[in-house]
Amino acid sequence: MAKEVTSRSDNYSQWYNDLVVKADLAEQSAVRGCMVIKPYGYAIWEKMQSILDGMFKKTGVKNAYFPLFIPKSFLSREAEHVEGFAKECAVVTHHRLMANPNGPGVVVDPDARLEEELVVRPTSETIIWNTYKNWIHSWRDLPILCNQWCNVVRWEMRTRLFLRTAEFLWQEGHTAHATAQEAREEAERMVGVYADFARNVMALPVVVGHKSPHERFAGALDTLTIEALMQDGKALQAGTSHSLGQNFAKSFDVQYTDKEGNQQYVWASSWGVSTRLMGALIMAHGDDNGLVLPPALAPIQVVMVPIYKTPEERAAIVARMTEIKAELEKDGHSVEIDDRDNLRPGFKFAEWELKGVPVRLAIGPRDLSGGTVEVHRRDTLEKVVEPLEGLAGRIEGLLDDIQRNIYAKALAFRDASIRKVDTWDEFKEEIEKGGFLLAHWDGTPETEIKIQDETKATIRCIPVDSAVCMEEGRCVYSGKPSHQRVLFARSY
Amino acid sequence: MAKEVTSRSDNYSQWYNDLVVKADLAEQSAVRGCMVIKPYGYAIWEKMQSILDGMFKKTGVKNAYFPLFIPKSFLSREAEHVEGFAKECAVVTHHRLMANPNGPGVVVDPDARLEEELVVRPTSETIIWNTYKNWIHSWRDLPILCNQWCNVVRWEMRTRLFLRTAEFLWQEGHTAHATAQEAREEAERMVGVYADFARNVMALPVVVGHKSPHERFAGALDTLTIEALMQDGKALQAGTSHSLGQNFAKSFDVQYTDKEGNQQYVWASSWGVSTRLMGALIMAHGDDNGLVLPPALAPIQVVMVPIYKTPEERAAIVARMTEIKAELEKDGHSVEIDDRDNLRPGFKFAEWELKGVPVRLAIGPRDLSGGTVEVHRRDTLEKVVEPLEGLAGRIEGLLDDIQRNIYAKALAFRDASIRKVDTWDEFKEEIEKGGFLLAHWDGTPETEIKIQDETKATIRCIPVDSAVCMEEGRCVYSGKPSHQRVLFARSY
Repeated sequence: MAKEVTSRSDNYSQWYNDLVVKADLAEQSAVRGCMVIKPYGYAIWEKMQSILDGMFKKTGVKNAYFPLFIPKSFLSREAEHVEGFAKECAVVTHHRLMANPNGPGVVVDPDARLEEELVVRPTSETIIWNTYKNWIHSWRDLPILCNQWCNVVRWEMRTRLFLRTAEFLWQEGHTAHATAQEAREEAERMVGVYADFARNVMALPVVVGHKSPHERFAGALDTLTIEALMQDGKALQAGTSHSLGQNFAKSFDVQYTDKEGNQQYVWASSWGVSTRLMGALIMAHGDDNGLVLPPALAPIQVVMVPIYKTPEERAAIVARMTEIKAELEKDGHSVEIDDRDNLRPGFKFAEWELKGVPVRLAIGPRDLSGGTVEVHRRDTLEKVVEPLEGLAGRIEGLLDDIQRNIYAKALAFRDASIRKVDTWDEFKEEIEKGGFLLAHWDGTPETEIKIQDETKATIRCIPVDSAVCMEEGRCVYSGKPSHQRVLFARSY
Repeated sequence: MAKEVTSRSDNYSQWYNDLVVKADLAEQSAVRGCMVIKPYGYAIWEKMQSILDGMFKKTGVKNAYFPLFIPKSFLSREAEHVEGFAKECAVVTHHRLMANPNGPGVVVDPDARLEEELVVRPTSETIIWNTYKNWIHSWRDLPILCNQWCNVVRWEMRTRLFLRTAEFLWQEGHTAHATAQEAREEAERMVGVYADFARNVMALPVVVGHKSPHERFAGALDTLTIEALMQDGKALQAGTSHSLGQNFAKSFDVQYTDKEGNQQYVWASSWGVSTRLMGALIMAHGDDNGLVLPPALAPIQVVMVPIYKTPEERAAIVARMTEIKAELEKDGHSVEIDDRDNLRPGFKFAEWELKGVPVRLAIGPRDLSGGTVEVHRRDTLEKVVEPLEGLAGRIEGLLDDIQRNIYAKALAFRDASIRKVDTWDEFKEEIEKGGFLLAHWDGTPETEIKIQDETKATIRCIPVDSAVCMEEGRCVYSGKPSHQRVLFARSY
């Protein structure tokens, strides 16, 4: 086979990279840290976007668009925010190039220096709250529930396709509310949407929880997160939702007149998921043959490969396949017939497995005459020969079953990877094995940082599901009293 | 009424700006030349995107995503291209800010200078063809039909909301072909898609034609365009599609092995429409009461305003409206009930007219008891009282009729504005009246530039519809022989 994939046990990191590149999802571009998302990868992202967008809109959110550039001075308005983002900003300083006076090519025109430098948005709280100032006057203007789908830039030094790139695509919701409670509820509602999407669309059994104060978004009062577990035992933060309090309203002087005629600062939330979700999808479900895509996100749900020797056989089989395709498409499934005549079936099988297509149908001359079809499912790699009769009616159920099975497998893996640990020796030993550790923590950033320094593990979240964590105990590191276990892991 | 709109006859330019801002489509941001697209405006853009995207995909185009940044040296590779874009580029020179050592705020960190400056994409031919080099080896890899929806930046000095902004949203298709003919056919197919969309979705009767060599895209062999006529008699270029020949393939060394085993340079097309279409939509159809939206693009197709005095009346009418809304939504229409209790019906009527909602339904207590409804159509401002019975069934037809009528009105206006002129005196006199002039031209850029200098009119296109222009004559300016009339106008 042409495209060999490194096995997970040989080199997990190389396996991931192989899947991204060889399954035609994305590749490095000529610009350091920026990726090209290829059509097959982008088709998955489009499905994510479209489903998420519908979920947002059902809660009353509307899309809008705010500028790519942020005046440098805006960043400094919120102290923690600038601290969080200033170190990794793409800065626009000039607005013109000119012919190089000393040779070929073009150079920056020194006369075209901007009065104030512009930063390419790393996130849009500042420019949006500066805009909201003009939109919000009275309590009648609230709430404002806006989202934008866009690109952002954070100048990361070490990048990995999808997981950490200098430019990435995302959505960022920014809401404005009259009360602290409404803003908090919005942040909770949206992390709920993310968890629902992760579980039911991406087949990712995420843990929902609060970030520790140390791990919060720069400028937030509270950050909620969904944390997923990858097959190498590392956690991946897959989406966050922040209660921003009145920090940005105060920095940009956004006040409203309440029903009693008093001026009040507005309360904020923001929430986002990014193309990082693609990384989570790949790493959570892929196997040594390639991607395993949940049917809900697969750009091609069913691929058909004709098996033939003569042109006549090929024509007859492809004709039958075209009928089946039409039937399946009528039911809303996406189907492709791979009738390329320069490749052997075995090569095609391997390629579609690499690309994670949930169901593969193969039909040969004997199937055609006998009215049968070989049905192969990507998740289990099982193959069965079935009657062609009634096939379309069974595909829906098969796709549902694959979706459920991928989730069940990931859930079983995650549940087997969550352990309670109660001593520091145990913690150090267990963290080497990967997975989530539920341990008591004394609530101080000092302890959190020491644990990270000694083990590279961080607090992924303080789970909102109290059943798994609410109990009295003593901090695994300091021995001080603790009222709740928190979730530790090494992470991406 | 709170939001007064300047009339077109008083000040057309101010009228346009009033519509954009007061109908909540967009506004200026804190960043010079960059706009904020507000939820109502963005909802129209989303509809445009979704319909166009479906049309592209039907022709086999797939979406992908390429980097925001372009290495400065890439721009210089294609000589005309750099000439066209270097003068209006946002240039990223640094990747970090630092605390200001001499005061508050942040400054650019001089140690974080990039080795090579990056330009924020003004268009993506260069970075995409640099990528295609790795995707294209054999004739089997062709054609490549990619599109991306993204933001681009051109540092325009004089900006106007939607029409000319430093940052704008657009789609750019970039295709790669084995032969010159295929590339040319692709460019023609896509301008055809644009014309179809403009006519049947935007209700814009555009003229399709070739740009003169002087007006071509920087680096193109041929540029096809759709030209729309605005109500002030100025033309607006609404979309372009380019045959790029082998220019970019040669600049980025993109070759393929043909069926005979020979190396060949690849042929290219590119094509794009942008948020400028929003400007065309507003200016082509709006009237002195505000926007007039074609139903195919209206975020709200039907708005219902209850007329009441008592809370009981309000409750009863809104209840009935809720039933009607459910019925209409079942048919796929977007409907809103404006039950705000702090505004008078007259204010609401004016606001929904300003926002261009195609159909307004008003129901008062007497309607409720008598089983009637007042139906108002935005395009003609006509009002009729109809039976409530069977209303839902009639709305579809009404919306279709409004869509057709808006197109017919724009077409009649355009057709009345196209005149043949044959002498230079006539040309100068007629161009002052606005509209499209069909005149003979000697085919030289010298004449074209002189005509522009003396009258501000440019060649909008050489129409592909030969019936209107293929005839022998003499250039209106130079008197030299000409085989074809071309379309002149002043333009946006």
